[in-house]
Amino acid sequence: MNTPAEKQRGSDSNSPTTRSPFLFSIFQAYLRLFRMDSPVDEKTPSTKNVGVDYVVNFNFANAKDKNEAAAQFEKLIVYLDKVGMRTEVRDGLPGKLLVFVRIRSAQKLVGEVYRARVKDWLHGVRPAAPDTETQRSLDKEPLTEAERLRIVHSLLTLPQSEGGAGITPGKGEWSCVEGIFPLHDHEFNKDWMKRWSTTWTVGPEELGNIRDMFGEKVAFYFAFLQSYFSFLVIAACIGSASYFVLPQYSLVFAVFNCLWSVVFVEQWKRQEIDLAVRWNVRNVSQVQSKRARFQPETEKEDPVTGEIVKVFPAWKRLCRQALQIPFALGASGILSALYAFTFGIEIMITEVYNGPFKSVLTFAPTVILTVMVPVLTGILSGIATKLTDFENYEHESAYEAAMVQKIFVFNFICSYVPLFLTAFVYIPFGHVIVPYIDVLGLMAAPEDEKMGTQAIFEVNPGRLRKQVIYFTVTAQIVNLAMETLVPYIKRKAFKKAKEFQDKRNGNEIPYANDAPEERPFLDRVRHESELGVYSVTDDLREMCMQFGYLCLFSPVWPLAACSFLVNNWIELRSDAVKICVEMQRPIPHRADSIGPWLNNLGFLTWIGSVTSASLIYLFSHTDTPTPLTLAGILIAIVFSEHVYFIASLAVRVALSKLDSPGLIKEKQERFLIRRRYLQESMGIDEETEHTGIAGAISVEGDDETAFWGRQEGAQGAFAAGIELIKSSKKEQ
Amino acid sequence: MNTPAEKQRGSDSNSPTTRSPFLFSIFQAYLRLFRMDSPVDEKTPSTKNVGVDYVVNFNFANAKDKNEAAAQFEKLIVYLDKVGMRTEVRDGLPGKLLVFVRIRSAQKLVGEVYRARVKDWLHGVRPAAPDTETQRSLDKEPLTEAERLRIVHSLLTLPQSEGGAGITPGKGEWSCVEGIFPLHDHEFNKDWMKRWSTTWTVGPEELGNIRDMFGEKVAFYFAFLQSYFSFLVIAACIGSASYFVLPQYSLVFAVFNCLWSVVFVEQWKRQEIDLAVRWNVRNVSQVQSKRARFQPETEKEDPVTGEIVKVFPAWKRLCRQALQIPFALGASGILSALYAFTFGIEIMITEVYNGPFKSVLTFAPTVILTVMVPVLTGILSGIATKLTDFENYEHESAYEAAMVQKIFVFNFICSYVPLFLTAFVYIPFGHVIVPYIDVLGLMAAPEDEKMGTQAIFEVNPGRLRKQVIYFTVTAQIVNLAMETLVPYIKRKAFKKAKEFQDKRNGNEIPYANDAPEERPFLDRVRHESELGVYSVTDDLREMCMQFGYLCLFSPVWPLAACSFLVNNWIELRSDAVKICVEMQRPIPHRADSIGPWLNNLGFLTWIGSVTSASLIYLFSHTDTPTPLTLAGILIAIVFSEHVYFIASLAVRVALSKLDSPGLIKEKQERFLIRRRYLQESMGIDEETEHTGIAGAISVEGDDETAFWGRQEGAQGAFAAGIELIKSSKKEQ
Repeated sequence: MNTPAEKQRGSDSNSPTTRSPFLFSIFQAYLRLFRMDSPVDEKTPSTKNVGVDYVVNFNFANAKDKNEAAAQFEKLIVYLDKVGMRTEVRDGLPGKLLVFVRIRSAQKLVGEVYRARVKDWLHGVRPAAPDTETQRSLDKEPLTEAERLRIVHSLLTLPQSEGGAGITPGKGEWSCVEGIFPLHDHEFNKDWMKRWSTTWTVGPEELGNIRDMFGEKVAFYFAFLQSYFSFLVIAACIGSASYFVLPQYSLVFAVFNCLWSVVFVEQWKRQEIDLAVRWNVRNVSQVQSKRARFQPETEKEDPVTGEIVKVFPAWKRLCRQALQIPFALGASGILSALYAFTFGIEIMITEVYNGPFKSVLTFAPTVILTVMVPVLTGILSGIATKLTDFENYEHESAYEAAMVQKIFVFNFICSYVPLFLTAFVYIPFGHVIVPYIDVLGLMAAPEDEKMGTQAIFEVNPGRLRKQVIYFTVTAQIVNLAMETLVPYIKRKAFKKAKEFQDKRNGNEIPYANDAPEERPFLDRVRHESELGVYSVTDDLREMCMQFGYLCLFSPVWPLAACSFLVNNWIELRSDAVKICVEMQRPIPHRADSIGPWLNNLGFLTWIGSVTSASLIYLFSHTDTPTPLTLAGILIAIVFSEHVYFIASLAVRVALSKLDSPGLIKEKQERFLIRRRYLQESMGIDEETEHTGIAGAISVEGDDETAFWGRQEGAQGAFAAGIELIKSSKKEQ
Repeated sequence: MNTPAEKQRGSDSNSPTTRSPFLFSIFQAYLRLFRMDSPVDEKTPSTKNVGVDYVVNFNFANAKDKNEAAAQFEKLIVYLDKVGMRTEVRDGLPGKLLVFVRIRSAQKLVGEVYRARVKDWLHGVRPAAPDTETQRSLDKEPLTEAERLRIVHSLLTLPQSEGGAGITPGKGEWSCVEGIFPLHDHEFNKDWMKRWSTTWTVGPEELGNIRDMFGEKVAFYFAFLQSYFSFLVIAACIGSASYFVLPQYSLVFAVFNCLWSVVFVEQWKRQEIDLAVRWNVRNVSQVQSKRARFQPETEKEDPVTGEIVKVFPAWKRLCRQALQIPFALGASGILSALYAFTFGIEIMITEVYNGPFKSVLTFAPTVILTVMVPVLTGILSGIATKLTDFENYEHESAYEAAMVQKIFVFNFICSYVPLFLTAFVYIPFGHVIVPYIDVLGLMAAPEDEKMGTQAIFEVNPGRLRKQVIYFTVTAQIVNLAMETLVPYIKRKAFKKAKEFQDKRNGNEIPYANDAPEERPFLDRVRHESELGVYSVTDDLREMCMQFGYLCLFSPVWPLAACSFLVNNWIELRSDAVKICVEMQRPIPHRADSIGPWLNNLGFLTWIGSVTSASLIYLFSHTDTPTPLTLAGILIAIVFSEHVYFIASLAVRVALSKLDSPGLIKEKQERFLIRRRYLQESMGIDEETEHTGIAGAISVEGDDETAFWGRQEGAQGAFAAGIELIKSSKKEQ
């Protein structure tokens, strides 16, 4: 399905507008909308970046007074100068300066690139050492934009002990440094948008472009999204077929769905390795840079390199990590309780209550959730950040992974608990529980007393399906709108307000210091300095949660995959627009995987096997649920889970038999390097082979000489043997 | 518990006879018994091997006639000569010749060793390439006996296309070659026995000796046995404490037992890697030699090395492997049915039947099993071998692993099914099933008719415990006796019979061709040629099955670990004796693990978590079982399984935090090699760094020059910035 060959074909066919002009034209209109907003004009030279590597957004309004601001500014300029940067300063937004940074000499850059590549090789990221001649090494493997920016960024941000300027935006001594960002390459962005608004799939070449421009971390996100999108085509076919042909809550569909999710995750694992090898970033997660805020406790000799390194004891971190368990339980408990509470209110109002203001009260649960969930998750995220800080990770990647795990817990609860409540509490136990909920005794009061609440209340079996459709269609559309249109409108309104304010203040010309020929460029930079910072984690989280709906609940409504298919076609493009237009250009970090999300995907397929089995058991026979027997549901779960384990093992084994181009490339490289070394060394060997070997084998003793001397050579041994065979007549 | 430091201490303390003279003196007596049997006499020079590498046991009685025998003998001598071997022929046992083989020149050997080491490095077995100068490479890492024998063995047995003589004993064109074996080093063996008869534990040094002598495969078995023995000490402590303090079927004990098994398996996995690194055999399983009987179907270019290789399509093998599933199900079904049938008979006879000949009939089940089980497993093993041959593996290791998996199925059934029947069928359902078994209506007939069979029959709840004690104590003792004393007695009797026969034939002096001074040596070789071939697989299987009893059933009788502790102390030593005295010296194969048994151990811990939970649920409350509710047992299983998964994950994570000396050594070696390379290359680099770099960075355009020229250097930028900050008064 997802072979490179097919992908190639997909990206090669450049006449897709004939196939579905509608979707593409929507996207093109959407692009036009944004281009109006962006101050980039193709005719002005402002699209060029005049060699700027990074812009430091220096907010002197953050300092206590101007003297402190001046001191910090001086330090910034001096430190940048020390690590070989050229700087130019311009007016920023009110209260801010823009410090333009560029590496001073080509020689310095080349040296840094070479050193970085050697370091990679030393840590096993590259199989081959870079060519010993620096220049030749760069010719062989040209410097990409992303590599250049990454290396300059590390010069700016690495601790001074590791040869950087140690600038940590917004933290401690760098409170005035609001951010460091590279400038967008608008020509590339325009081409990119143009290409994606006319092609259906994102091929490996396109991913390579993203990698060269925005780094491997962003490229991995798009690769994942494309791979997921391709697999959604299959899921949508299975889903549609099931919806129109099979009964509701079909076991057959559930099995296919579960298998699909397992195959998807396993193939992505392989594809990830493959991409990492192709992009020369395999094992890069093991060479991650130190966290600037890591607080070492002791010093220790590194047993591998022999250097003295600062460490924090692993057992201490393990103890601190143990706090995650009560935290996760507490957070889940609070959020689940909130959902259960709102759910109870909702049920009563919509299905039991018949009193006055019903139409108004119906919105109460939504209001409660809309207000409370962000507040609660906000507070919990704050605690999570503190906890992760406290765990004191040595490397950025470990810190990020620990944070992702905590975020995943919140998102899991917020995304799936409402559905769990409906499926496993409301429908099976509704008729038992609901009467008890009515503690106030207010509900159903106007009704006939004799009928009692129990008679009035009836479980609404369609509720689960409605909810699933809400989460997989409505919520996705709302989300997409929130992500794309809202920022657009917000910025538009903000701009208008500012223009209005400027007009009122109107006594001063803004940015009077700008040289007129630089004005368009500086306006663009000021605009970019205002934009948000792109985070791959948020986008990956969104996709991971979406995948979870498929794993856990698509037996309820098999068309979910179709909805996601359409959504993700747009998502893929709107995320590209987001990076190009709505966000600062991302700093090109490296990655060899989508990181901890991979484990979360695997976890969701597992939970999916359990919930699917339970759903099928509970709802498959009739429209109303069969009576819930504990043994029945347990058998379903045990059976399904073991089938899941066996199936995922089988899929893994089967996939491992397939050749992976990336892994073959890796093995081949290692093999060739070794063979070359061997051939080089064999020349020396042959000269010395014939000298001084006598010592290797012990000198023969008398016994030995006698024993081995009886028969002369092979002929002697042969003759003796034949003689023995012949003379053996009597014994046989 | 099992740290190297402790091991060291264990092997260093050489005065253990004071601690337990009893166990050691038994072992010493046992050793004396064997020495009497062996024709080795310390005073004669026959303990020396006169430089013989291998002895080929040529059985010309196997050929159709003497001409064929002569032809095959000629081929043998010619082929041996071709691969650089010296040969001497002597009289063997009646109908046989002994062909003594030795590598012809020291130079040839050194070259072969060097080539083998380079090949290892090329395939990633060694981190460092051997020194380019052959002699220096040998000085740095001296040749061990095992390496020498392994390399000579590969010269004898590798296919001719890969530079060997292609001798495959007993197969096809080599029907007369009964075996190829190296000669025992009796001095080493004597020392070994002496050391082991006075020390308690086998330290890393001792394992190193075994490795140097018998190769890594045998050494891994002893390392495993020692590690298992050390862990058994803990298990025995927990078991005894539980037996005397806790109630029967204690949940606490079951949890500890399960945890113990998980920790043991996980730590062994790590220890295995550690040993493999220390012994330079990491990844050696990936470089295994081709199977001589592999039948390729097509030719293909190896994508890594670019060579043309003969292959058998993986999908075809996968289809053939699918036959394993019906085979395993069928074999399990037949064996289980046999056990169920015998079990039924046994129950009836011992607990229901009261008729005549009861005392005789009691033995019927044992007789049936003793006769039928070997017959059935024999037939099934034959089918398993055929099936594995049919699967057509390319490498020896894959073939062996596939065979081991099939053997494991038989052994699992034979070892555990009788206990499963008692625990999960007889005790809970006995009172329901037994009356139906009595199809013949014969049983209980002499009793009062009114009472009926149902009233007479009562489930015997102590039966399970009795059976567990039988399997963990009696069967182990019987097994040990079968392994050690029986072959001794058999050989003794056989020898007597032969002497008697010789005396009767007595008209001819045997081995008249022997030179008198060689006579003791040749007698010893003839004796060794008669011995069996040692198989590590059998010993590993025994230990694996023993471990299974602990995982699955020790909640029934917690003292099982104590019994195994004693048994394995003897086993460790009796296996050493077996290798030295009862078996031909093993060919020193390499291995980087105990192979497929590792997965089987993991599988047993998993099944253990399930059976322990079921046993506790069924038997913990009273002496008679609580009524079996399906939901209850399922909850127990689901809960226990998930706890198992979490626990094994936690153990794995915790162990991965510990430093492993082997892995550190490996990383360090790789790091040092790279650094050396880097230092070598940096010298070249510095000379060339300053030439021709201009091309690396694009030339600046006019815009750029203007932009970057406004402020001069860091001072300029600094001054401009300060000016901007100062002038910003109004805006703040």
